[in-house]
Amino acid sequence: LNIVVVGGSAAGMAAAAKAKRTNPSANIIVFEKTKYVSYAPCGIPYLFMGLVDGFDKLVYYTKEYFISKRGIDVRTRHEVVKIDESEKSVVAIDLESGREVNVNYDKLILATGGLPRKPNIDGIELEGIYTVRNLEDGERLHETALKSKVIAVVGGGFTGLEFAEAFIKMGKKVLLFQRRNHVIRSMDPEITKIIEDELIKHGIELHLGESVVEFRGKDKVEKVVTNKGKYTVDMVLASTGVVPNNNLAAKLGLKLGSYGGILTDEFMRTSNPDIYAAGDNVETKHIVTGKYVYIPLAPAANKMGRVAGDNAAGGNSRFPGIVGTAIVKVFNLEVGRTGLSLREALDNGYNAVAETIKHISRSHYYPGHKEIYVRLVVDRETKRILGGQIVGYEGVVGRVNTLAAVITAHMKTEDLSMLDLGYSPPFAPVWDPLVVAANVIERKLK
Amino acid sequence: LNIVVVGGSAAGMAAAAKAKRTNPSANIIVFEKTKYVSYAPCGIPYLFMGLVDGFDKLVYYTKEYFISKRGIDVRTRHEVVKIDESEKSVVAIDLESGREVNVNYDKLILATGGLPRKPNIDGIELEGIYTVRNLEDGERLHETALKSKVIAVVGGGFTGLEFAEAFIKMGKKVLLFQRRNHVIRSMDPEITKIIEDELIKHGIELHLGESVVEFRGKDKVEKVVTNKGKYTVDMVLASTGVVPNNNLAAKLGLKLGSYGGILTDEFMRTSNPDIYAAGDNVETKHIVTGKYVYIPLAPAANKMGRVAGDNAAGGNSRFPGIVGTAIVKVFNLEVGRTGLSLREALDNGYNAVAETIKHISRSHYYPGHKEIYVRLVVDRETKRILGGQIVGYEGVVGRVNTLAAVITAHMKTEDLSMLDLGYSPPFAPVWDPLVVAANVIERKLK
Repeated sequence: LNIVVVGGSAAGMAAAAKAKRTNPSANIIVFEKTKYVSYAPCGIPYLFMGLVDGFDKLVYYTKEYFISKRGIDVRTRHEVVKIDESEKSVVAIDLESGREVNVNYDKLILATGGLPRKPNIDGIELEGIYTVRNLEDGERLHETALKSKVIAVVGGGFTGLEFAEAFIKMGKKVLLFQRRNHVIRSMDPEITKIIEDELIKHGIELHLGESVVEFRGKDKVEKVVTNKGKYTVDMVLASTGVVPNNNLAAKLGLKLGSYGGILTDEFMRTSNPDIYAAGDNVETKHIVTGKYVYIPLAPAANKMGRVAGDNAAGGNSRFPGIVGTAIVKVFNLEVGRTGLSLREALDNGYNAVAETIKHISRSHYYPGHKEIYVRLVVDRETKRILGGQIVGYEGVVGRVNTLAAVITAHMKTEDLSMLDLGYSPPFAPVWDPLVVAANVIERKLK
Repeated sequence: LNIVVVGGSAAGMAAAAKAKRTNPSANIIVFEKTKYVSYAPCGIPYLFMGLVDGFDKLVYYTKEYFISKRGIDVRTRHEVVKIDESEKSVVAIDLESGREVNVNYDKLILATGGLPRKPNIDGIELEGIYTVRNLEDGERLHETALKSKVIAVVGGGFTGLEFAEAFIKMGKKVLLFQRRNHVIRSMDPEITKIIEDELIKHGIELHLGESVVEFRGKDKVEKVVTNKGKYTVDMVLASTGVVPNNNLAAKLGLKLGSYGGILTDEFMRTSNPDIYAAGDNVETKHIVTGKYVYIPLAPAANKMGRVAGDNAAGGNSRFPGIVGTAIVKVFNLEVGRTGLSLREALDNGYNAVAETIKHISRSHYYPGHKEIYVRLVVDRETKRILGGQIVGYEGVVGRVNTLAAVITAHMKTEDLSMLDLGYSPPFAPVWDPLVVAANVIERKLK
């Protein structure tokens, strides 16, 4: 059995490793365009902050490990340029030698990932404007950031916030531009207000509701022009989202969704039954709405890869979809969301209601307890919990994950209100913030 | 509507407060034997550790608050001595004046709590041997502990461990006697080993598999005699469990379960439809097994109280039961369990299997990541997750709560393996320990 994997990041290497485990006699080749495989681009901001010493530390397993220990033929610096469905063959270019490599597949796994969305702004092609997606991008960005004094970050999503913090911790002046009136589109303003305060408190010059209309400069970017003003900067990080990297899939005529991601079934099979897809090039079902969404995050990419690899090798696994759980550290704040925000719920046609409560992370008498804010989004008719957002200085992430399970299980407010959550003074008040939030919204629904 | 509540701790005050909210015109009387209401005995060990300055800090709301702000007639130092079902009346003794108080009820709520189980050991009645259940017990214990040098703790359950740590932090020499070969009966030895190492590391003299057979002393306890040796001590804390405090219920002929707890329906109604019960005097359904269990913990007591109070006042709430979630801090270790241990699962007739994995709490490259151990108990036939136990130096409690939701929702290993848990380097590795544990046990089940 010949399995060819296109892309050696999270999904691709998870697929390759799982395929080999499911079918040890399978012949597995992975083509990866960059020099790194199995890496964690999510770690780049922490490297900038000085918490990680070297890009090689962001690699989970090296190419050599996969080759010698796992028996997987990993070819880095190889770009796949052509796939022939009828011949079941792949053509890759060895970027070092320029030579063509031809291989045949029985099963193909597309793990081509995402690309940074390039905003349609005049001057975007100027030197000094960066996007970041892989470790090589990170290396280039780091080099320039070290030499810069004033950095503009365009986009207030999770990645934008992480890099804005990283630049602050590198001693830079940071301007964060966000077109909308609040950061993190997938959270509601009632909660993002707390995040915005934290950003400002730590010295970020926050420009909300401000659209970048032009980048100006001679050899390189020198000015950011918005609908409200002009700002002199040394460099720009454009962090305005991710799009599926699906040139190959499009050429193959694979069925794509409205976000441009490959549509697969729950076995991660594309519209061609010999071709699987996994990772940030794929749309997946949202467990709450049942609709295809494009929320490219590493845990889902890894899981999809595992499922694709298992099935390509003859196994039988399913990927059930996601609830959009995302967490982020913003200076001292823990932030997390799962399910639908109120806006998303309303956009999806739910008769939704939301309520935000403020509580404490531990027993009131236990030293060090911190404020924690929990926002629940609930369907008025079924009382089903559609989403949750939590912000605080501790105890956030575990509660977000608990809500992810609650939402995945289609629980209602009364189920959460009676959920048997742990209590001990150093870790939680006797009425856990999640339970209090459920009680408060139950009252509102009556 | 006259509602009488017997007992003013967690369940009783939750019941009274909720009843008043549901029916503001209800006349609600609470009788409480001690001088405190609405208190947190769980905080006592932290007061001993010097983290809480005064027993009054362990009171959530005072008697005066309930009377003036909530309109609830709270009578402390009043012991209910008689209940007449046919007349629907209650007799209480005012412990200050010795006078009798007679009141009538339409609905009665029994929230009489639990009593420390007194082990059947020779010499148990000696001075200097303590049990602790309420704040007044705590005050007495504290006074003696301050004057003691060597303290024996009998019982290695959650409470025993918390007090053992508290005594160490008071500078005492601590001997911990546990009849079984491992601490925390509701956890499996594969996990408790890590806890035992932590206890020893912090100076507790741990005597596992050692039964106390006698306490000796003249005026007060001086020696603990076990099946293995004799030990000189200044005082003893017997922390050998809790039993339902159901003298009143037994006299009324209310239906009791095999643990001596009151049996109620999901509305918290006893076998007498005008009498509700809530808290540590009640047995409740285990959501996994469907059987009545006696696991007296504060969050369930509070929730039961809330449900009993709502229903007594004309509302319509249900208490669905528990999964036995319990968490505890043991020195620097976070410890938690939920659902069934392997032993409990086997005792309940499941064809159960368990697996323990070791992983890390954050991304491997993020500073400060700690080891975390996850043990899952799974039913071989249905693959349903029956229980989980987690130990580590961070990130434990949230994962235990996530498992509590997973278990409550009857999820299977494949559901947990695909659960959309949050990932961010400061908080979790991309393959969360829970997901890894599910994957490992899935492999074992194949």
